[in-house]
Amino acid sequence: MDRSEQRAKAESFRALHASPGLFVLPNAWDAVSARIFARSPSCRALGTTSAGIAAVLGYPDGEVTPREEMLEMVGRIARAVEVPVSADVEAGYGASTEAAAETAAEVIAAGAVGLNLEDAWHGGASPLLSLEEQVARIEAIREVGEREGVPLVINARTDVYLREVDEPERRFEETVRRANAYTAAKADCVFVPGVTEGETIGRLVEALEGPLNVFADLGLPPIEELERLGVRRLSIGPQAQRASFALTARIAEELLEKRDFGFVPQTMSRAEVRRLLNPPGPS
Amino acid sequence: MDRSEQRAKAESFRALHASPGLFVLPNAWDAVSARIFARSPSCRALGTTSAGIAAVLGYPDGEVTPREEMLEMVGRIARAVEVPVSADVEAGYGASTEAAAETAAEVIAAGAVGLNLEDAWHGGASPLLSLEEQVARIEAIREVGEREGVPLVINARTDVYLREVDEPERRFEETVRRANAYTAAKADCVFVPGVTEGETIGRLVEALEGPLNVFADLGLPPIEELERLGVRRLSIGPQAQRASFALTARIAEELLEKRDFGFVPQTMSRAEVRRLLNPPGPS
Repeated sequence: MDRSEQRAKAESFRALHASPGLFVLPNAWDAVSARIFARSPSCRALGTTSAGIAAVLGYPDGEVTPREEMLEMVGRIARAVEVPVSADVEAGYGASTEAAAETAAEVIAAGAVGLNLEDAWHGGASPLLSLEEQVARIEAIREVGEREGVPLVINARTDVYLREVDEPERRFEETVRRANAYTAAKADCVFVPGVTEGETIGRLVEALEGPLNVFADLGLPPIEELERLGVRRLSIGPQAQRASFALTARIAEELLEKRDFGFVPQTMSRAEVRRLLNPPGPS
Repeated sequence: MDRSEQRAKAESFRALHASPGLFVLPNAWDAVSARIFARSPSCRALGTTSAGIAAVLGYPDGEVTPREEMLEMVGRIARAVEVPVSADVEAGYGASTEAAAETAAEVIAAGAVGLNLEDAWHGGASPLLSLEEQVARIEAIREVGEREGVPLVINARTDVYLREVDEPERRFEETVRRANAYTAAKADCVFVPGVTEGETIGRLVEALEGPLNVFADLGLPPIEELERLGVRRLSIGPQAQRASFALTARIAEELLEKRDFGFVPQTMSRAEVRRLLNPPGPS
């Protein structure tokens, strides 16, 4: 993609976070799921789901997928659609700040204009990277965006709640401490998965210095309530793909155990599939 | 994969075609769909769907996907499961017999033990390869299997009905002429998509010298009737994936237009996804 076009996409994606109300960011796991979400008239941007891409490629979740394989699919997704794409790159694929910076450069090369960077850590005893290390990574990624001329929209995710770090009563404070440090390091948005209570979400919005992204999990209040609470961004991670897993599992049971293919009338028509995939994405 | 193990898988897959009754071959489009089908107790083998893999990668159907990209996903699918995998390689990816032979060698390298080879042709004025050309390809693929020590199970597909070649009243005869020539060239099974009438299927079984594979399309008789008619193999092509497209399209509409994430309780649980993907497939 032309860098000036990519820069404009990054800026229009960044502007969504400052618009009034909440925007929904669906997460794609392959090129065709990206096409399906992107054709919705209200789709303004897309995320990728690292857990979802990992599953497509045959890997479990948790930074097991090699970076180049993850980014190859990110590139297919970015080339498949016109809207801005934000790449989920887990904790940045590597044990160093330099590795995270290299990942950010690869995200730009893949045609994405934003990224999710989490502080969960799978490489050591501690479940999270230290605040200082994560701040250094955010700053390094920001510098890569400046150097490459594509101001990446950084969604800094903190997994204090998701990984159940500390005692429950300490999590709110630790989340706010980390989130505001990430915002001070110029992250554009903060993502706090694992929180679904409206009351806690409302308190987070009050305490945070940047926009808040929440995850569409069981028990989360409806979108109009989230909007009223001041949440800016809602993403779905691997949820839509996992709905398709449940469907495929039902089809497998029906087809192989009950020997029945009654699901066939529920498929998307050939003509609609053709419209979805022509012209080809990657070229 | 060890060649002697791969040879044993090819032979056990071949034996399915000689067993009494009909076996169902579900078609996977990525590693996780392969895992979902393969965990069903009655799953004996898996096919891939070239249209489905193309969609994952962002390409339309019809031999547009580069061979190496198609076979990379075939390899992920083959590594993700224990059951024999048959690769859908369209017309063989190339304008020559040598190209089809090279594709067969790549199918073996990817860990698959069978292939679908169709006589549809997208590279010229005629909708089908000539019978002589297709027979030459089948013979060349058979030789590759012998040379490599993995006796590939060849499913020779004829698209006379699917591409509506000739006048309707000529199609049955032309299908039988082609199918029996492919069987004489030592194809292990003949695949006739585009035929759904029980009466025609029964007449095909009578006229064919090899086992018949049919496609689970709208209007096809139920499996017990197909079995009674003597059909040996039923495959689903991209149908299960297209059911998931329809579901994803409903989720996209619900999420983006109605701003509701009511689909979330219908997802496969995290614990079940974890069991599905651990240990990782590719290694």
